[in-house]
Amino acid sequence: MPELRRDPVIGRWVIIAVDRVRRPDEFRKNGAPEGFPKDQPCVFCPGNEHHTPPEIMAIRPEGPWGGSGWKARVVPNKFPALMVEGDLGKRGDGIYDIMNGVGAHEVIIETPRHEVSLTGLSDDEVRDVLWLYKARMLDLRNDHRLVFALVFKNVGERAGASQEHTHSQIIVTPIVPLRVQNELERCKAYFEQRDRCMLCDIAVQELSSGVRVVLETPNFVTFEPFAARFPFETHLMPKRHYSHFEMTEDGLLPELARCLRSALLRIERAVDHPCYNYLIHTSPLNAAPLPHYHWHFEIIPRITRTAGFEWGTGFYINPVPPELAAQYLREVKV
Amino acid sequence: MPELRRDPVIGRWVIIAVDRVRRPDEFRKNGAPEGFPKDQPCVFCPGNEHHTPPEIMAIRPEGPWGGSGWKARVVPNKFPALMVEGDLGKRGDGIYDIMNGVGAHEVIIETPRHEVSLTGLSDDEVRDVLWLYKARMLDLRNDHRLVFALVFKNVGERAGASQEHTHSQIIVTPIVPLRVQNELERCKAYFEQRDRCMLCDIAVQELSSGVRVVLETPNFVTFEPFAARFPFETHLMPKRHYSHFEMTEDGLLPELARCLRSALLRIERAVDHPCYNYLIHTSPLNAAPLPHYHWHFEIIPRITRTAGFEWGTGFYINPVPPELAAQYLREVKV
Repeated sequence: MPELRRDPVIGRWVIIAVDRVRRPDEFRKNGAPEGFPKDQPCVFCPGNEHHTPPEIMAIRPEGPWGGSGWKARVVPNKFPALMVEGDLGKRGDGIYDIMNGVGAHEVIIETPRHEVSLTGLSDDEVRDVLWLYKARMLDLRNDHRLVFALVFKNVGERAGASQEHTHSQIIVTPIVPLRVQNELERCKAYFEQRDRCMLCDIAVQELSSGVRVVLETPNFVTFEPFAARFPFETHLMPKRHYSHFEMTEDGLLPELARCLRSALLRIERAVDHPCYNYLIHTSPLNAAPLPHYHWHFEIIPRITRTAGFEWGTGFYINPVPPELAAQYLREVKV
Repeated sequence: MPELRRDPVIGRWVIIAVDRVRRPDEFRKNGAPEGFPKDQPCVFCPGNEHHTPPEIMAIRPEGPWGGSGWKARVVPNKFPALMVEGDLGKRGDGIYDIMNGVGAHEVIIETPRHEVSLTGLSDDEVRDVLWLYKARMLDLRNDHRLVFALVFKNVGERAGASQEHTHSQIIVTPIVPLRVQNELERCKAYFEQRDRCMLCDIAVQELSSGVRVVLETPNFVTFEPFAARFPFETHLMPKRHYSHFEMTEDGLLPELARCLRSALLRIERAVDHPCYNYLIHTSPLNAAPLPHYHWHFEIIPRITRTAGFEWGTGFYINPVPPELAAQYLREVKV
């Protein structure tokens, strides 16, 4: 069972893999090996379903459960960061706080085709992926030990992907992570002062100035954030207030799919197919609808390196103003 | 003049380079070019002093100011993240906060020899580097626009270095960065409850259990932190309470130099010379001595990749328990 440990100085939780330990000699010079293995079959391709743990959910128009014939499927991560069984066992060790690494860690295999980015999918296929994100969150919120779900995606090795075949992941944790907690607290303080959601206000200001907007559609806005950490960092959120991603109506998913795919396509064309991550920030699973927090996608192209200054301060240096990035992305033909 | 912009949702400041902008086509596939340029002379080697901006300070037993004959020298960064001239010009833009990118950005060239890591220096040379860190902080605290100094080091391209020749940097900012602010606030709350410094308590607990200690010397403790984010992340701090790095007596610097060099050597031998960062967390320059905060070095080997989960949550997955890492590092012969 992995351990969750809290750093007492900064309050940050860390997952320490006490079972599946890597030995120092497993770390090759300068880190992970470069290049995905070419000599092994892709475990996410059809016909290799037996290489993944048993399926949790799938979109499968035909064929037997667990076999081929699927359009998208969800399986437990074979090397999970957190384990779904057991209790939290919260305890202390002198000044330190510990709990058991209880949680869920699932993989969403987005297409049977061996695509390397979500942009290789059709808009309809992206809609199905978004529907699976929702479906998994709605299911996992029934587990009362778990309080926060992060949906995320790693594309390319530099973005931390260990499989090339396009996939997303969901990690559900028994605590609200520090970064989300910080956002929730600041948004709550703002709401208490003004009786409005800060992210709703951001949407209004961005749409009114337009300088950082990449795409506006009837229900969503795609924009470069004012204080973007990275070149071409892109956010995407509903114009109307929704605190929880999983509460988004199914009827909005086709439009959201088009916006997400369009944002990724624009970034890939503007910057020559960079490695990227995206993630969804949403309200804790166990919270009632919140008037002060608003779910959003954050897309992070991995084209600059983080160094000592960023690690030490949480302060980023961005060499591309978001206004310029937005202009480039608007001009890309998709 | 670069702009400092605050993300309203999380409170994080970002430096946006609005002058020295990089165009999207400058971003090569998968980021920065690999390998330091081999066909150009090293700008940090003796004889090339004219390639750096005019010297701020040097340890130079012989030879004229600005020329060769130095053992270590400090120069302004040729491509500074912040500019030393001008006022802060704090202003708003609707919901957003902006100020001018005022600050200092200096480079400490640690030796005239073309070494690639601090471990290529003798203990005496490392002591001189530490003395220069102190001297620069003591000088820069006279500028009342500046409130926080981060000394940091990037070794190897994966750690963000753009020059191979061993060097450190110091960036002095007009605000206390969010990460340091979070540490200061938690440590203050702890002090208010217990009347003791949390980091002093950590030193006591670590030395008493010993399982994460790498090296104990009369005045310093080198250890793997309980909630280490990364394999072989190593902290080094004085056993006695010092809130400000620059207040450390010169008499302690030789011992600190031995500890720092030893920690880096152990990591390099245990993990085959990884890229690494280190940084010093210390109290704000303009603060009186604080009873609740205690300076420390954080050494971060860059051997795992950060992916969507880490970016989204600030939550890290560490596959090497710090107790095991400490055992390996203790056993390394130095």
